Amino acid sequence: MQYAAAADGDVIDMVSGNPDWEPPEAIREGLRAYADGSPETFQYPPSDGLVDLKKEFSGRQNVDPNRLIVTNGTGEANYLAMACGLTAPRGDDVILIDPVYPYYLGKSSLLGGNPVLVEANHDGSLDLEATCDAITDDTAVVMLNTPNNPTGAIYDLNAIAEISETAAAHDALVVVDEVYDQFDFTGNFESALTLEADNIIVTGGVSKSMAITGFRVGYAVFPPDLVDAAKTRHMLVNVTTSRPAQRAVVDAYRATDSEYYAGVCERLESRIERFTESLDAVGADYTFPDGGFYVLARFDGFAGTMENVKILIDEAGVAGMPGASFGTAREEWIRFALVTPRVGAATQRLTDYFSE
Amino acid sequence: MQYAAAADGDVIDMVSGNPDWEPPEAIREGLRAYADGSPETFQYPPSDGLVDLKKEFSGRQNVDPNRLIVTNGTGEANYLAMACGLTAPRGDDVILIDPVYPYYLGKSSLLGGNPVLVEANHDGSLDLEATCDAITDDTAVVMLNTPNNPTGAIYDLNAIAEISETAAAHDALVVVDEVYDQFDFTGNFESALTLEADNIIVTGGVSKSMAITGFRVGYAVFPPDLVDAAKTRHMLVNVTTSRPAQRAVVDAYRATDSEYYAGVCERLESRIERFTESLDAVGADYTFPDGGFYVLARFDGFAGTMENVKILIDEAGVAGMPGASFGTAREEWIRFALVTPRVGAATQRLTDYFSE
Repeated sequence: MQYAAAADGDVIDMVSGNPDWEPPEAIREGLRAYADGSPETFQYPPSDGLVDLKKEFSGRQNVDPNRLIVTNGTGEANYLAMACGLTAPRGDDVILIDPVYPYYLGKSSLLGGNPVLVEANHDGSLDLEATCDAITDDTAVVMLNTPNNPTGAIYDLNAIAEISETAAAHDALVVVDEVYDQFDFTGNFESALTLEADNIIVTGGVSKSMAITGFRVGYAVFPPDLVDAAKTRHMLVNVTTSRPAQRAVVDAYRATDSEYYAGVCERLESRIERFTESLDAVGADYTFPDGGFYVLARFDGFAGTMENVKILIDEAGVAGMPGASFGTAREEWIRFALVTPRVGAATQRLTDYFSE
Repeated sequence: MQYAAAADGDVIDMVSGNPDWEPPEAIREGLRAYADGSPETFQYPPSDGLVDLKKEFSGRQNVDPNRLIVTNGTGEANYLAMACGLTAPRGDDVILIDPVYPYYLGKSSLLGGNPVLVEANHDGSLDLEATCDAITDDTAVVMLNTPNNPTGAIYDLNAIAEISETAAAHDALVVVDEVYDQFDFTGNFESALTLEADNIIVTGGVSKSMAITGFRVGYAVFPPDLVDAAKTRHMLVNVTTSRPAQRAVVDAYRATDSEYYAGVCERLESRIERFTESLDAVGADYTFPDGGFYVLARFDGFAGTMENVKILIDEAGVAGMPGASFGTAREEWIRFALVTPRVGAATQRLTDYFSE
């Protein structure tokens, strides 16, 4: 990202995961309304979140609001969930699906976990047998992300159920990060909360769905017997989540209709189609994503090393993220984030570069 | 707090630490201005904080901005600072001054620390000899809070210097929480950052000074060799601090003059004078605070137990916080937070109750 920013020529940034579209108008209105409130409304909300926001999140997920904590983004939600898994008497192994979102590795190491990487299938789907085989009595937690960053895979709910059952047999937890849940191009995505398993923690947030990554509003839903410890940790680390952001999200939830989300999905699908056409044209390997906004691609004879990513910045004017950032399984690959209005230009540049 | 809220009669809440006065007008204006920004301004700010906010905080403290992290309130700042202290090769002992702000005990235990309580002097000042004697090779961190919650003491800077030197001799850190720095009634408060010691971490924030405890904007200043580890932890736990709140604070810093802060201090001093008159009238023991907005009092024959605090709620209509919440040194005492416009009425009620 730094290299792209410092480059001489014009570079299309396809590195960062920041939505480039408008947040719901009600986010702006919610902030304005909040700004006019009484001094009391500027003080501590409940530690686990504004009652109204807990109601919105838990209503959408059809879970008891007492199981839910409003967090400082999905980042904190995943931290709390992994910390929960890494609490005795569970073991220290953190099973991660490779390619893996880099923050999971970092959080695991921060919390004293021992990462165990299990390769996904070529299309990004879960290798169910390998994943279940990796679960032992040393397992603290199996960390899943669906729709997946970086592969775009949406996991089969039956596979998650089977992993949860295997984990339960070893007293391990399963964390399912669903932060991309609104970007489902298949129409088939279902939350792991529908499984009603007592060893599944689901995390999510509105950073991506409402295009407000800077607001830091997320949530985690815990099994009833684990929620108190998570609330305590949340309180001791952060006290609570920033209130102006929470308030604006409540208003946006109430005022934003499904058209907003559908519009964003349409835009992303059209970008993905356009982008993957160029990949087809140059014979690159990729999987059309089921969800999210990333495309992971492999170019013949051009491995996704940091060196090659820099060459692509300098010579093609397109910045992606090297596959080695995501564990070991996709070192040959490059991740492109389709959160730029310049996908058309990027497509042209990549086609030109790889057709030379 | 729950008991007071559920009580039948009218109860004056002197439990919570929420300012009851207006935040600077520029906070409201800052939120409105932020609401009109481009979509990019709704995305991730730098993990360690908006450049402008780092500049404001570090400029006020006259430190290198690279040493500073903008945190999710002073709560996260203290968590990061204590985590820093509790990192190998330092020991596990966390020296806390008794009476102690309850969150320090919780954070210490969350981070695997071993709390060592050292009693403050009767007037709340540091018992320098006892504090230095408690520092050993097992010490990870000495946790100080000045102006102090709950005693209202402002620590002598020379005492902090001596503690820092003793700690340095044992490779231990000193954390100084200065969140009440704007509430200095002596005119003598100086930040521990002026000591330029390489084992001191200073934390603070605007929750109290700008009357926005719900915004969660604080900071921590680390010695240069410790800041990178703290930045990593901050990123892995929270990614970053909520941006609307950060932006509003930048604007408020720029637009708010010293009159605002002076006005709040005057109001608090007048409340404290009024309140302590009633304590004088009933012969209670207390120390007139040097800073902050709490008064710790002991009533003859009426220990500050939870039971007595409940009796005071039911029979006098005044809610304080039992001394046992603050460690072991002040179990006989009750803390009153003077962040209510009804201090006059509370004064009358306490006088009536204890004069009966």
